[in-house]
Amino acid sequence: MHNQYVIGVDFGTDSVRALLVDTQTGQVAGTHVHEYTRWKQGLYCNPATSQFRQHPLDYLEGLEASIKGALANAPTDVRQQVVGISIDTTGSTPGPVDETGLPLALRPDFAENPNGMFILWKDHTANAEAEEINHLAHHWDTDYTKYVGGIYSSEWFWAKMLRTIRVDEAVRQHAFSWIEHCDWMSAVLTGNTNPLTLRRSRCAAGHKALWHSEFDGLPSDEFLTKLDPLLSGVRDRLFTDSYTSDQAMGTLSAEWAEKLGLSTNVVIGIGAFDAHMGAIGAEIEPYAFVRIIGTSTCDILMAPNEEIGHRLIRGICGQVDGSVAPGMLGLEAGQSAFGDVYAWFARLITEPVRALLGDDAADKLSRQLIPHLSEQAAQLPVTENDPIALDWINGRRTPDANHTLKAAIAGLNLGTDAAKVFKALVEATAFGSRSIVERFIEEGVPIKKVIAIGGVAKKSPFVMQTLADVLNKPIQVAQADQACALGAAMCAAVAAGVHPSLEAAQQAMGSGFDAEYTPRPDQVAVYNALYQKYLRLGSFVESQPARAQAVTATV
Amino acid sequence: MHNQYVIGVDFGTDSVRALLVDTQTGQVAGTHVHEYTRWKQGLYCNPATSQFRQHPLDYLEGLEASIKGALANAPTDVRQQVVGISIDTTGSTPGPVDETGLPLALRPDFAENPNGMFILWKDHTANAEAEEINHLAHHWDTDYTKYVGGIYSSEWFWAKMLRTIRVDEAVRQHAFSWIEHCDWMSAVLTGNTNPLTLRRSRCAAGHKALWHSEFDGLPSDEFLTKLDPLLSGVRDRLFTDSYTSDQAMGTLSAEWAEKLGLSTNVVIGIGAFDAHMGAIGAEIEPYAFVRIIGTSTCDILMAPNEEIGHRLIRGICGQVDGSVAPGMLGLEAGQSAFGDVYAWFARLITEPVRALLGDDAADKLSRQLIPHLSEQAAQLPVTENDPIALDWINGRRTPDANHTLKAAIAGLNLGTDAAKVFKALVEATAFGSRSIVERFIEEGVPIKKVIAIGGVAKKSPFVMQTLADVLNKPIQVAQADQACALGAAMCAAVAAGVHPSLEAAQQAMGSGFDAEYTPRPDQVAVYNALYQKYLRLGSFVESQPARAQAVTATV
Repeated sequence: MHNQYVIGVDFGTDSVRALLVDTQTGQVAGTHVHEYTRWKQGLYCNPATSQFRQHPLDYLEGLEASIKGALANAPTDVRQQVVGISIDTTGSTPGPVDETGLPLALRPDFAENPNGMFILWKDHTANAEAEEINHLAHHWDTDYTKYVGGIYSSEWFWAKMLRTIRVDEAVRQHAFSWIEHCDWMSAVLTGNTNPLTLRRSRCAAGHKALWHSEFDGLPSDEFLTKLDPLLSGVRDRLFTDSYTSDQAMGTLSAEWAEKLGLSTNVVIGIGAFDAHMGAIGAEIEPYAFVRIIGTSTCDILMAPNEEIGHRLIRGICGQVDGSVAPGMLGLEAGQSAFGDVYAWFARLITEPVRALLGDDAADKLSRQLIPHLSEQAAQLPVTENDPIALDWINGRRTPDANHTLKAAIAGLNLGTDAAKVFKALVEATAFGSRSIVERFIEEGVPIKKVIAIGGVAKKSPFVMQTLADVLNKPIQVAQADQACALGAAMCAAVAAGVHPSLEAAQQAMGSGFDAEYTPRPDQVAVYNALYQKYLRLGSFVESQPARAQAVTATV
Repeated sequence: MHNQYVIGVDFGTDSVRALLVDTQTGQVAGTHVHEYTRWKQGLYCNPATSQFRQHPLDYLEGLEASIKGALANAPTDVRQQVVGISIDTTGSTPGPVDETGLPLALRPDFAENPNGMFILWKDHTANAEAEEINHLAHHWDTDYTKYVGGIYSSEWFWAKMLRTIRVDEAVRQHAFSWIEHCDWMSAVLTGNTNPLTLRRSRCAAGHKALWHSEFDGLPSDEFLTKLDPLLSGVRDRLFTDSYTSDQAMGTLSAEWAEKLGLSTNVVIGIGAFDAHMGAIGAEIEPYAFVRIIGTSTCDILMAPNEEIGHRLIRGICGQVDGSVAPGMLGLEAGQSAFGDVYAWFARLITEPVRALLGDDAADKLSRQLIPHLSEQAAQLPVTENDPIALDWINGRRTPDANHTLKAAIAGLNLGTDAAKVFKALVEATAFGSRSIVERFIEEGVPIKKVIAIGGVAKKSPFVMQTLADVLNKPIQVAQADQACALGAAMCAAVAAGVHPSLEAAQQAMGSGFDAEYTPRPDQVAVYNALYQKYLRLGSFVESQPARAQAVTATV
């Protein structure tokens, strides 16, 4: 019997990576990372207005380059032994397509129009539309936000679609349908991008497009029309069913088979969002809490439908049957800022240095600052009199989304130096994590273990030890450097029929854990007291009148 | 008629300066600054325990050097025309003396004993003793703290004396009496340092030693004995009366006349604390609020006794008949940190730079940082959504002294850079100022005008403009670079009989104002709203359980 290989493709914010994996051993036979060309140049984006768009050509070029790159150094027979490809992407990252499923920006008349491109997850141009959706949903017979924690976000599908067709008449006229990045990528490989027939991702549909079997799919045409008559009829041009990532979308098209040097028998799996496939790659199991810890966190918990599925969990990002694995409720939560909190503080220190001592000094400082502060902070005692910070520097995603909240630091005196502030900020991100964990537990969802992946999990023992102490739970860090792409590869192996289930694929292909952080009892006791201070400071900030009128009085 | 000259001598924390001034024109005919030799080397101090001592030799050397220096470049006939010398010092800065009034550290057996030296105002080794004094006073028939805002401080006379005689048996046996720095300096010049007969300063006695005419002077022997039997009998070895600074202590001794090349007819005025003489130099008048703004602030207000003297003003540092001028109630308040708040933030940024980029880079940054941040902050709009900070980085002096309070910064998001934090800190110091001003007004003490002196007032237009906007009051900055020494010179001119009153001396010798900051109406409106946020944040911090038990759990 020949070896069989699968390819997992992970589209991140800045780059796409492909992983060629042996389905029996999990051994990585090839990998390649491709950075998006246009994105890297800052095209089509405007950070001042939170407009972040990605051109579909960046994706197509990246798809081809990453897969070819992963195959390039593999033994020649491996190419013939590839049986499946699955793809994960960021999300919600939807874009408008025409009747053939072609993203508008691939048509010459929309080639440079940001509104014809994919609207990246972190684009916040649709804040007003999200509020309208919330308002209407909360006053409708069916509260369509009930499975997404009660609050629809400007980062999601419907808000972005509505905003775009409102502001761009040309897009309004030519957008036959809309598609998530993960669905389009997978469809491209199959050759069938017809928006009415391609099989859409359950993960994307359930978490971001308000799809639920209880609603017979998407929100009703009445609801959408009431939201804006511009949306009238769009439901019929989208989709009715959605599919879990253990399933196949189709097989590789002749065009792409030739392009990649692979067989047309290669199965293309149903796509999903990066965190969900990352959770699979990190060997999620029922009641394991998998945290992808980077600039922000995305937290995934999975529980048997029959045990949790009937309950609404307050204040999390969403609960979707099958968004991670079939038969399982996928629960999503997360912190709006984690590593970003540390990066903010590093910037605060580095910016004046850049202005006064120049780029070389600032760049050198910037490279060494966070490791230096971590080293110093790790030496500090942990006491109940330490400064306390809130981690809401980018608002709060969960529990109870509120993007108007801001961060704070209290307990400062003349002896509070940069290391002490840094320590307080690290603890703040850990307290934010604890508030999510406590919410799950309060809502009757036990957490059996904590698994971490992502850049911060891999690179920062000080942060991870603090997190273990604050959560009072051991944390395992997954071995896989590219857990999302590995998870996609596992999904491909199941979709292609190599393994009977995701669990079996995890068992065969999983790479285990390479670090475990154990709570230290002394610190746990002090952090229990400091966490109460965190909660009190948080309650105070939350109780303040939000969004006071901005009275600009320029000097 | 010859010109007549006076010399004002101002003993600060690090150095002493003398000013030779023409009594008719106020023209400065000579000035000299002398840094304390031993203090500069860090001798006898331990910042870790807040022990700050100054050797009387530093003072004696400084007295001679500064006066000689001020006279050195003056025309030869001026020396014959000097008619008075007055001295101000920091305070409460008391020290133990023997029967002859000799500070113990000037005796060979105590030469290197910090407990035989002067205990500088900012020495906090007597925290426990201050609490004992407060506790006993609040449970005594007469609340001896009633005229010092209800709270006795570890920075003051009795606490320091009690602490020292408790911990040092040798001092206990040889300290016949205790003396404030300002009294000892003046007494030295007269040649009579006898602690039982030298004339003590009303300013020092009233503000720091609980002297009040209502108590027949100092607290009773019963009270002191109850506080600690070690204090039994000390009252009789101190003083009964105290004197205002328009009066004379005596004339220049033959020894010092020869040393300085002056006549023995030179009148030596009664001493006082720097801020009080600074207020005179800054041309204080009834209901003017004079602020000495440096690392911290000392605020002096003066009101006719007959209008305010019968009332107790809640939560300020003290109210003493004649502490500034005879017939006037001198009211003292202040902020524990002002420029120190900015210096703290600059250190926070500079310290990691020192560790990672070295001393040269850090020193260069340190020199330019606050001006750079001020320049950037001055360009920022002022809006109700700006971050809010508390200025309590070194506790709160007034209103309502509480040294356990700490600072906080709220309203931080990813866009909050160093300039925005700096702006919030500057506003915080201004809000702290406003809370003092509002307290005076609530207590029925109107504030007619605001006058500022000190390093920050002179050097930072951005801070002063913000302060004017937040207070919604115009602020005049006194022209005099050395307002304290100038005020001392004015006192000397009155003590010597050249002018009939301090007011007359101010009129003749005052140097007026060189800058005025006018509130900007747009900013005033926004700051009214932001001040409410400051008060709410402050109430929250104050409502938190203070001084949680420190549970050190070292990593």
